Amino acid sequence: MNSKKPLILVTNDDGIFSKGIRSLVEVAFTFGEVVVIAPEKPQSGMGHAITINNILRMNSSDIFGEIKAYTCSGTPVDCVKLGIYELLKRKPDLLLSGINHGENTSTNVLYSGTMSAAVEGAMENIPSIGFSLADFNSDADFSLSKLVVKQTIEAVLKNKIPQGICLNVNVPKISIEEYNGLKICRAAHAFWEDRFDKRQDQFGNTYFWLTGQFNHQDKGEDTDLFAMQHGFASIVPIQFDMTAYHAIGELNSWEI
Amino acid sequence: MNSKKPLILVTNDDGIFSKGIRSLVEVAFTFGEVVVIAPEKPQSGMGHAITINNILRMNSSDIFGEIKAYTCSGTPVDCVKLGIYELLKRKPDLLLSGINHGENTSTNVLYSGTMSAAVEGAMENIPSIGFSLADFNSDADFSLSKLVVKQTIEAVLKNKIPQGICLNVNVPKISIEEYNGLKICRAAHAFWEDRFDKRQDQFGNTYFWLTGQFNHQDKGEDTDLFAMQHGFASIVPIQFDMTAYHAIGELNSWEI
Repeated sequence: MNSKKPLILVTNDDGIFSKGIRSLVEVAFTFGEVVVIAPEKPQSGMGHAITINNILRMNSSDIFGEIKAYTCSGTPVDCVKLGIYELLKRKPDLLLSGINHGENTSTNVLYSGTMSAAVEGAMENIPSIGFSLADFNSDADFSLSKLVVKQTIEAVLKNKIPQGICLNVNVPKISIEEYNGLKICRAAHAFWEDRFDKRQDQFGNTYFWLTGQFNHQDKGEDTDLFAMQHGFASIVPIQFDMTAYHAIGELNSWEI
Repeated sequence: MNSKKPLILVTNDDGIFSKGIRSLVEVAFTFGEVVVIAPEKPQSGMGHAITINNILRMNSSDIFGEIKAYTCSGTPVDCVKLGIYELLKRKPDLLLSGINHGENTSTNVLYSGTMSAAVEGAMENIPSIGFSLADFNSDADFSLSKLVVKQTIEAVLKNKIPQGICLNVNVPKISIEEYNGLKICRAAHAFWEDRFDKRQDQFGNTYFWLTGQFNHQDKGEDTDLFAMQHGFASIVPIQFDMTAYHAIGELNSWEI
């Protein structure tokens, strides 16, 4: 990073009006020039979705005062693409996504719009970080999260995120006094045991609502879930290449 | 696989009325009992999106005659979850997704609803395969694709997909005579160079439409793109754990 102030693109999946992105913008602003492009409405669970069969709208917003901000009608990944190619017309020096209301540990990365925005940044070869707080409350306390964001950005500006990856940072729902620091982890092998609430509408027709329990049976002490349970903010390096290289040998032994 | 006919769940992202899923169902039916649950409308580019802030509808359809079929108002991943937990009330022996109208090679896996459905199946520990044909035409010729589906299902029933992965199968737009067989590959390192068409609506307001070019500079001869260019159908093992294990050591050397 040269001595010029870095250009920082900020997005999220909870929408531009969420407390999480406001907290992220406040910290980002102390590090460089900030431009915000975020969904005009919540986009939780959108994963790596992009809008290809419909149009996108982008409108400027004065929600962050002197900081340039724009709403986007699409998904978090749409925000990243529009941000780079239409708004900035260049790649930012840093891409920050979040702070998500709710944790994105383990396999939740796949469902998370917050993390998919960071993954899209990594595909563009931009140092990219997704932040999530383990608190779904829309008025959650982001004090510790803001400290974690500051520490992580400092580490990323001093070092260099390896190519092909982004960082998935999760913050536990604890006070600053209880916080033990940042910890590099792997994603825990944990899964949703899905269940659907089956209900009737006013016409007697059935509808379903996704619910379920997060099933955490990974006993490893190097996981993000273990770190979170022990007062650490977890940092998991996430790669966008989903090839299972370790399986190629076995598949080549198949007679096909 | 025991001697009982396998239970096969079929889904896609182009919607239940597409020619691709009809072709897949026709081949799947020769291998076992087939149940279809597919989006009621096209869901291309939805990636691993799930519907969490809204309801889901599921309705039976007679589109495939004697084969049980259902439409779902949600995404491909919603289809898989509803299919397992509400429709079958058990895990199928095989999950097939596609055949997608358009290829899903390289990093397109992340954007692809077809492949995300297969990834969701792998997370449920179900042998899962996504199929795509390199032809966006809604009336594309699926003759070779059907042969590839048959060969792949035979291989998967005879062998066993390693745990934690699914298969991404792509079929080139060639005739059966030009076809050289199946080839195990890695995903090519290729990316979209995004561009937006900037247009005006009838009120003079600006809107954007995502477009762009696929930038393929990976010269490897072990990639899916190389295989496709040389008359092979490519099979890439795809893992759902996105942890960049190779980067953990380097990140641990950071002073944080």
